[in-house]
Amino acid sequence: MININTLIKEYSMARNRTLDLVEPLFEEDCCVQSLPDASSIKWHLGHVTWFFEAFVLQHYEKPFKPFQQEFLTMFSSYNESNVPHPDPKRVFFTRPSLKTTRDYCQNIDERINNLLRKLTEDNMLQMITTLGIQHEFQHQELMLADLKHLLSKNPLNPIYQPKNNLQITTSNMADPLEWRNFEGGLIEIGYEGKGFSYDNESPRHKQYLYPYQLASRLATNREYMQFIEEDGYNDPCFWFSEGWKWIKSVDCRHPLYWRHEEGEWKEFTLHGLVPLDLELAVTHLSYYEASAFAQWRDARLPTEAEWENAASKQEIDGDFADNNYFHPRHTTINTSVNINALYGTVWEWTQSSYSPYPGYNPKKSNTDKPKSDIWDIAVGEYNSESMVNQYVLRGGSCITPKKRIRSSMRNFLPAEARWQFSGIRLARNE
Amino acid sequence: MININTLIKEYSMARNRTLDLVEPLFEEDCCVQSLPDASSIKWHLGHVTWFFEAFVLQHYEKPFKPFQQEFLTMFSSYNESNVPHPDPKRVFFTRPSLKTTRDYCQNIDERINNLLRKLTEDNMLQMITTLGIQHEFQHQELMLADLKHLLSKNPLNPIYQPKNNLQITTSNMADPLEWRNFEGGLIEIGYEGKGFSYDNESPRHKQYLYPYQLASRLATNREYMQFIEEDGYNDPCFWFSEGWKWIKSVDCRHPLYWRHEEGEWKEFTLHGLVPLDLELAVTHLSYYEASAFAQWRDARLPTEAEWENAASKQEIDGDFADNNYFHPRHTTINTSVNINALYGTVWEWTQSSYSPYPGYNPKKSNTDKPKSDIWDIAVGEYNSESMVNQYVLRGGSCITPKKRIRSSMRNFLPAEARWQFSGIRLARNE
Amino acid sequence: MININTLIKEYSMARNRTLDLVEPLFEEDCCVQSLPDASSIKWHLGHVTWFFEAFVLQHYEKPFKPFQQEFLTMFSSYNESNVPHPDPKRVFFTRPSLKTTRDYCQNIDERINNLLRKLTEDNMLQMITTLGIQHEFQHQELMLADLKHLLSKNPLNPIYQPKNNLQITTSNMADPLEWRNFEGGLIEIGYEGKGFSYDNESPRHKQYLYPYQLASRLATNREYMQFIEEDGYNDPCFWFSEGWKWIKSVDCRHPLYWRHEEGEWKEFTLHGLVPLDLELAVTHLSYYEASAFAQWRDARLPTEAEWENAASKQEIDGDFADNNYFHPRHTTINTSVNINALYGTVWEWTQSSYSPYPGYNPKKSNTDKPKSDIWDIAVGEYNSESMVNQYVLRGGSCITPKKRIRSSMRNFLPAEARWQFSGIRLARNE
Amino acid sequence: MININTLIKEYSMARNRTLDLVEPLFEEDCCVQSLPDASSIKWHLGHVTWFFEAFVLQHYEKPFKPFQQEFLTMFSSYNESNVPHPDPKRVFFTRPSLKTTRDYCQNIDERINNLLRKLTEDNMLQMITTLGIQHEFQHQELMLADLKHLLSKNPLNPIYQPKNNLQITTSNMADPLEWRNFEGGLIEIGYEGKGFSYDNESPRHKQYLYPYQLASRLATNREYMQFIEEDGYNDPCFWFSEGWKWIKSVDCRHPLYWRHEEGEWKEFTLHGLVPLDLELAVTHLSYYEASAFAQWRDARLPTEAEWENAASKQEIDGDFADNNYFHPRHTTINTSVNINALYGTVWEWTQSSYSPYPGYNPKKSNTDKPKSDIWDIAVGEYNSESMVNQYVLRGGSCITPKKRIRSSMRNFLPAEARWQFSGIRLARNE
Repeated sequence: MININTLIKEYSMARNRTLDLVEPLFEEDCCVQSLPDASSIKWHLGHVTWFFEAFVLQHYEKPFKPFQQEFLTMFSSYNESNVPHPDPKRVFFTRPSLKTTRDYCQNIDERINNLLRKLTEDNMLQMITTLGIQHEFQHQELMLADLKHLLSKNPLNPIYQPKNNLQITTSNMADPLEWRNFEGGLIEIGYEGKGFSYDNESPRHKQYLYPYQLASRLATNREYMQFIEEDGYNDPCFWFSEGWKWIKSVDCRHPLYWRHEEGEWKEFTLHGLVPLDLELAVTHLSYYEASAFAQWRDARLPTEAEWENAASKQEIDGDFADNNYFHPRHTTINTSVNINALYGTVWEWTQSSYSPYPGYNPKKSNTDKPKSDIWDIAVGEYNSESMVNQYVLRGGSCITPKKRIRSSMRNFLPAEARWQFSGIRLARNE
Repeated sequence: MININTLIKEYSMARNRTLDLVEPLFEEDCCVQSLPDASSIKWHLGHVTWFFEAFVLQHYEKPFKPFQQEFLTMFSSYNESNVPHPDPKRVFFTRPSLKTTRDYCQNIDERINNLLRKLTEDNMLQMITTLGIQHEFQHQELMLADLKHLLSKNPLNPIYQPKNNLQITTSNMADPLEWRNFEGGLIEIGYEGKGFSYDNESPRHKQYLYPYQLASRLATNREYMQFIEEDGYNDPCFWFSEGWKWIKSVDCRHPLYWRHEEGEWKEFTLHGLVPLDLELAVTHLSYYEASAFAQWRDARLPTEAEWENAASKQEIDGDFADNNYFHPRHTTINTSVNINALYGTVWEWTQSSYSPYPGYNPKKSNTDKPKSDIWDIAVGEYNSESMVNQYVLRGGSCITPKKRIRSSMRNFLPAEARWQFSGIRLARNE
Repeated sequence: MININTLIKEYSMARNRTLDLVEPLFEEDCCVQSLPDASSIKWHLGHVTWFFEAFVLQHYEKPFKPFQQEFLTMFSSYNESNVPHPDPKRVFFTRPSLKTTRDYCQNIDERINNLLRKLTEDNMLQMITTLGIQHEFQHQELMLADLKHLLSKNPLNPIYQPKNNLQITTSNMADPLEWRNFEGGLIEIGYEGKGFSYDNESPRHKQYLYPYQLASRLATNREYMQFIEEDGYNDPCFWFSEGWKWIKSVDCRHPLYWRHEEGEWKEFTLHGLVPLDLELAVTHLSYYEASAFAQWRDARLPTEAEWENAASKQEIDGDFADNNYFHPRHTTINTSVNINALYGTVWEWTQSSYSPYPGYNPKKSNTDKPKSDIWDIAVGEYNSESMVNQYVLRGGSCITPKKRIRSSMRNFLPAEARWQFSGIRLARNE
Repeated sequence: MININTLIKEYSMARNRTLDLVEPLFEEDCCVQSLPDASSIKWHLGHVTWFFEAFVLQHYEKPFKPFQQEFLTMFSSYNESNVPHPDPKRVFFTRPSLKTTRDYCQNIDERINNLLRKLTEDNMLQMITTLGIQHEFQHQELMLADLKHLLSKNPLNPIYQPKNNLQITTSNMADPLEWRNFEGGLIEIGYEGKGFSYDNESPRHKQYLYPYQLASRLATNREYMQFIEEDGYNDPCFWFSEGWKWIKSVDCRHPLYWRHEEGEWKEFTLHGLVPLDLELAVTHLSYYEASAFAQWRDARLPTEAEWENAASKQEIDGDFADNNYFHPRHTTINTSVNINALYGTVWEWTQSSYSPYPGYNPKKSNTDKPKSDIWDIAVGEYNSESMVNQYVLRGGSCITPKKRIRSSMRNFLPAEARWQFSGIRLARNE
C-alpha cells in the first residue's frame, strides 16, 4: 500500500519538474517537432496531462467533464482500438497555444489532487497515478532529447541551459580502460521486489551466462575519434550489412551532434555549440555504430543479462537528469565500485534484441498487480507490441530522471536511433 | 520619377499591413509551415524585411551593419550564387522568436525611412523600394494562403478572422452563366505604361486570336458539386493522364478545403469551418481539376492572351484582400461591365504554360529601367527560372492586395497546386 | 481513297521491318524493360500486333476469336475505361515467350491480309490500318530507344548493330554555325493536305511570328563539351530552378550515354561503346539541358511555330532509321538547303509546351475523317490527354522511320526525358 | 578427411541438379527478377558457378584465366572490399545469354573436376568445394522461391511443374493439433559433430529452458483462414506495432500467394494456380503474421533453442525438394515420431532474433577448420554481418535440398519476408 501523502508529494514534484523543464523555452520552441519519432514540447506537456485525464479522471471523477473534448484525441497516443496513432498532422497543431496547454495542466492537477485526497483507499487509483508519474519521467527524458534535436537544426545554435558551475575542468584525462571479470553460470534476471516496474521486466527468470568481462568505463569521444580516423566508417568488415547500407544512405560519418567546422571538432549540446571534449563518454550513436566500434576494438556489446547481472550488484548512482547538467561529465573511477557509470551518463546499447522474458504473457500484467481493463490499457505502451526489430539499452543517461531507473529497467530503440543519449559499454569473452 | 513622399507613405502602409495580418495570431501559429512550398508566417515576416536589408541597406547604408549576421542567410530565398535555397531546415527554426523578428522589422523600417529621406534623388533606390513593396504584397498574399493551409490541419478548426458584416446573405442565387463574345484578330498583350511591372510582362507584343467566348461569371461550388455528383473524378475521359494519376495518388475527390462531415458539406475558411455555400465561386483547385471541369462542361480554359485581351478593357475592380474578407463573396453582375469578377475573388487558371514573351530576354530588365546588378538580383525571382512546367493564372483573388494586380500581371503555379485561391473562368470557341 | 494494293504492301513492309529490328537480339534482350516509361521489345512486338487485333479484327472479323484471350489485356495500353494501364507487373511477364509472340504476329498478319483483300471498299478499315502502320512506325522508334537504354546498363557493352560502311570518316569537322533569317509575320502552321496526320496537328491556323533566326546546323558534341568544361552544370544562372534541382537530384553532369573512362570520353551507342566523336550532333539531352545550353550560348530554343515555318519550306530529307545506322553521322551542309539536318539525325527540342491548337477539339477527330467510336479509341493516344507538362520536339531522328515524319508532326516528352535521340537547334531573335 | 571420389560425385550431383531445375524454363523466365532480394535464375546459375571460379580456380589453377573477366564481378555477391554488392543494375543484364551462362557452368565444372582429381590431398580445396556444394544447395532453394514469385506475377499463371502422381487426395483431414511436452532445464544447442556446418551454428553452448510445449503439427490453411475470418488482420491487439503498420502499408490481408477469385480461394503454386487446400500447412507468411496468428491462438512461436532441443532428438526426415513436389503435401502423423513435419514442408519461424551464440567470434572460423583468408572470404556470407533485425527459421521446407538441413541449421529472414516457404509451429508454456 502506497502512502497517500508521499504519492501526492511525488505527483506534485513530477508535474512541477515537467513545467520547470519548459520554463527556459519560447512558445515557438515548444511547438515544433523535428523527427517523426519525436514530439513537440507542447505535445509532450499535453500528453502527460492527458494520461491523468484519460486514465484517472475519466474513470474516477463523477461526473466527468473533459477540459476540452478534442484534447482527448489530440494528446492521445492511442485511439479507441488501441492502435498507436499520434495524428501525423500533429506537427501542424499550433493550437492549443502553450498558454492554454499550461492551463490544461493546472486544471487536471487540481482535479487529480482532489481525487487523491478523497479516494485515499483506492489501490488502483494509486497504482495508476504511480504509473502516470513514471510515464511523466519517461516523457521528461524524451522532451530533452527531442528538444536537443530540434535546437540542433537552428543556425543560431540556441542554448537551452547555460553551462553551470557543475562542470569539471577539461584537464582530466579519462581513466584507462580496464576489464572487470564476471563468472557467469546460471543466474537470474528480471524485476524482484514490491515497488513499481513495467511488465516487460518480468518474470524474474534463470539464464545461463558464460564467463565474461565488462569495460571499467564507457567508451570515450577520444576512442571514437580514433575509430573515425582509422577509417572505421569506410571499412565494411566492422559493420552489419544493414548498418553499412544505413551509414551510406544517411551519409553518417560521426556521432549525431559532432560537427567539423573551421578545422575544429565541435559538439552541439543543450549548452549550445561547444568544442568537442575528447575525455567525455561518446554518445548519440546508433546500434550499428556501437556494434562497429566494438568490432573494431576486438570486443562486443554486452547482452542485457550480462549487464543486469553486473548492475544488480551496484547501487543506483550516477549522472542523471536530477543534476540539471544534461550532458556527460568528466568522472574519475569511484573507488567504491569497480565499474564506472554503469548507471546514468549514457544509455548502454546491448546486443540483445527486445523480446519477451520466458513466461511473459503480454496479455496479463504482473501477478501481484490487480487485473483491470484500465490498468491494461494504461500500461499498454510497455506490452509486447514493440518486441520486434528493437534493441535493448540499459542504465539510463544524463537526461534520465533517476527515479526512472532500476537494474531491471529495459529501454529499447530501433537500431538506427541516435537522438537519445546512447553510448557504448564494451564487453568481451573471458 | 517617383514622388518621394508618396513612396515613404506607400512603404509604411505596406509594412504596417503585413504586421496587421500577423496581429490575430499566436506565436505558435507563426512558427509552423505545413507545405514544402509554403513558409511560416515568421519566415515571411523575416523574409520581406530581409529584402530591404539585403537589397537596399546592404548597398546604400554606409557603413552597413547587419541586424544579425545569420538573418542574411536564414531569411534569404537565394544564396550567394543565386541558387534558390530557403534552407530545408527552416521548418525547424524556432528562433528567432516572433518578438525578435518584429524587432528586426522595426529596426529595418527605421533605417529604410532614414535612407529614403536622405537619398531623395536616387532613382534606383526608389525603384528597388517600389519592387520591395510589390514583393511585400506578394508575400502578404502567400501568408494568408499558407496560414489557411496550416490552420486547416487543426482539429480545433481555428478561426483567423471572425465573419464580419460584409457578408451578404446566402439567399442570393448566382447569376446564370452567359457567354460573352470576343472578336479576336491580331491583338497586343503585355505591359504598356510607365508604372511598375515585372519583366515577365514584357515586351508588349502581337498575338493572333481566333474569335472566342468567356463565361460571364466564375464557376460556382454548385456547378462543381454537380461535376462531382456526375462522377467527374471517376471518368478518365475528362482528365489529362498525368492529372488522372495525380488525383489517384493523392486521393483527391473534391476541392482542397471541402469536407463531408455528418452528411453535410462544409468548407474550411479563414473564418473557420462553415457550411459550404453553393452560390460562391469554387476555389482551391488544381490545374488538372480546372481542366477536367471545363472538359466536362464542353468548354475549355482561356489562354492568357484571351484573358488579357478581355481584361485590358475593364477597370480593375473586384473582391481583393483590401476588403478584409479573405473569401469569395456573393456577387451580382455589375451592370457596368459584362464580365463579373474578372479581377479578384479567385485566380483564374489559363491553359497557357508559363513561358517567355517573344523578344523577352531573361538576362536584361525592361528597357526603361536602369541596368544594375542589384536590380537584376532583386528582380531575379521573376526572371525566366520558373518558365517550365507551370501554368499561368490571371486576375488576383480575395486575398490579393489590389495594388498587386494589373491586366498584364502573370501569376504561375505548378499544375497540382491547390493551396492558392485558384478557380475557373470557362472559355470556348465561338 | 487509299489504293488497296499499296496499303497491303505498306502493311507488310511495316510489319516485316519490326521483325527485322528484333532479329539480332537474344530472347533475353527482348524480355527486359529498363525504364518505367520504356517497354520490353517483346511487349512492343505484342502491342503493335494487339493494335491490329483489337482495333481491326475484333471489329471486322466475324466471328472473332482472340489468339489468346489474355493478350487482349496483357498487350493493351488502355483498359476498357480508356485509362492508360500497361500493367505495372508487365516487367515480370516472362511469358508469352518471344517465340509465341512471333506466332501471334504471324497469325494476326494472315488474318489482317485476308480482311484487307476481302473488304476492299471499307474506308474505315483502311484508315485504321493506316493508323496502325503509323503506330507501328512509332513503336519501331521506341524499340530502338528502349533497347539502347537497356543495353547501356550491361557491363559487357553489347553491340546491337556492328558499325557498317555507311560511316563517314571522323576527320570531317562540323561546319561553322551560321544563322539563317526568317521574316515572321502572320503565318500558318498545322497539317494541310489529304494524307495521314494525327489530330494534334490540326486545325491549321494562324500565328504571328516576330523575325527570328535558326542555326544552320545542330549543336555538336564539341560545343556541348565546351559547355561542360566552362562549368555549365555548376552555374545555376543557365538553368530553370526545376532543372537545377533535377540535375542535382539525379547527379546529371553530361549527356545520358557519355562516359568518362580511363581519362577518355566515350559514348554508348547501338554500335557498342565507342570513342566520343566531337563533330557529331549532341543527343540524349533533357529539355533542361537543351535550354541551359542555349542560355549559355546567348541563344534560345525555337518555338514550334518558328520551326515549322522553316521546315515547311524544305523537302523531308535527312538521316532516318531507314539507313540502318541508328546514330548521328558526319554531314556537310547540303547546298540545296540552307539549314542542315532540320529533318532526321536528332529530335529538336522546342520551347513550346505541348498544347492544343486553337480550335482543336479533343473529342472530335479531323473533319475529313469519318466519325466512329473505334476510330476515336484507336487514335486516343494522340488526343489531349498528354497536353500538360510536356514539351514539343520536331523533325525526327536517326532512329525514326522516315515515313513517320511531316513538317507538322509533333512529338512531345516530359522535360527530364533523355532516352530518346533529343538534341538542340538554336534560335535567336533577329 | 573427405573421400575424394565421394566429393567428386557430390559435386556432380549438386551441379547437375541445378541444371535440372532450370530445364523446364524458357530463356525469358531465367532473365527476370521480381523482388529486390531475389535474383534471376540466370544470375543464380552464374553466381553458383562464380563461387567455384572465384574461390577455387582463382586460387588453385595455375595459371588462372577467367572464363570471361566481367563475370568475376557480374556474378559476385561481394566486391573486393567484401562489401555486399550484387550490382543493382543486374536486373537489366540480358547478356550473357542463358546459353553462354550454361557454357560457363560446363567450363568451370570441367576445370573443377580436373583440379579435384589432381590435388587429392588438399584439405582446404576439399573443404571449400564442400562449402560450394552447400552454397549450391542454398541457391537451388532460392531459385525455386524466386521463380515462384516471378511466375506469380504473370496473368497466364504459368506452370513450372505439372502436378505429379505424388499428390495425395484432398479428402484427408489434417490431424487434430496436440501439444507435446518438453522438460527444459539446462540444455545444449549448436552444432556437434565432424561434418559440415556454418560458423553461425557454433559454438555448442548451454541454455536454460523452462518447460514448454510444441504443437504436434504445423498450422494449416484452415486454421489460418479462421484467423482471417475472425478479423485477425483488423484487430491491432494481435500485432506488433511495426507489423500493424506493415500490413496496412502493403495492404496485406492473407498469405502471399492466396487469391480470392470468383468467390473462391485459390493459391498460386509451382504447379500453377490451384484451389486452396485447407488441410495443408499454411505458408508464405511474414514473421508479423506468424506472431499475430500465434497470439490469436493464445500461443506463441518457439525460441530456436526450444526448437533445436526437440529436433535434435528426431531423425531428419520430411518433405524436402528431393521429392520434386515443391509444395506442402497432405500428411498423417508418423507414429514413429511425436512431432509431425518438424523437418521439411515449411520453414518454422522462431521468436529468436538472429544473433551470435555465446563465444562466437565472427572473425574466426570454427576451431576444427583451417585458418585461411580464402576460407574466411568464402564463408563470409554466414558471418555476423546479417545479425541484426532478422529472425531465425528452422527445419527447412519442401523446396530445401535435404542435405542442406541439420538440427542446428539456422536460416534467417527479415520480419516482412514472405517469398520463402515460411510457416508456423506453435509453442506455449506448460
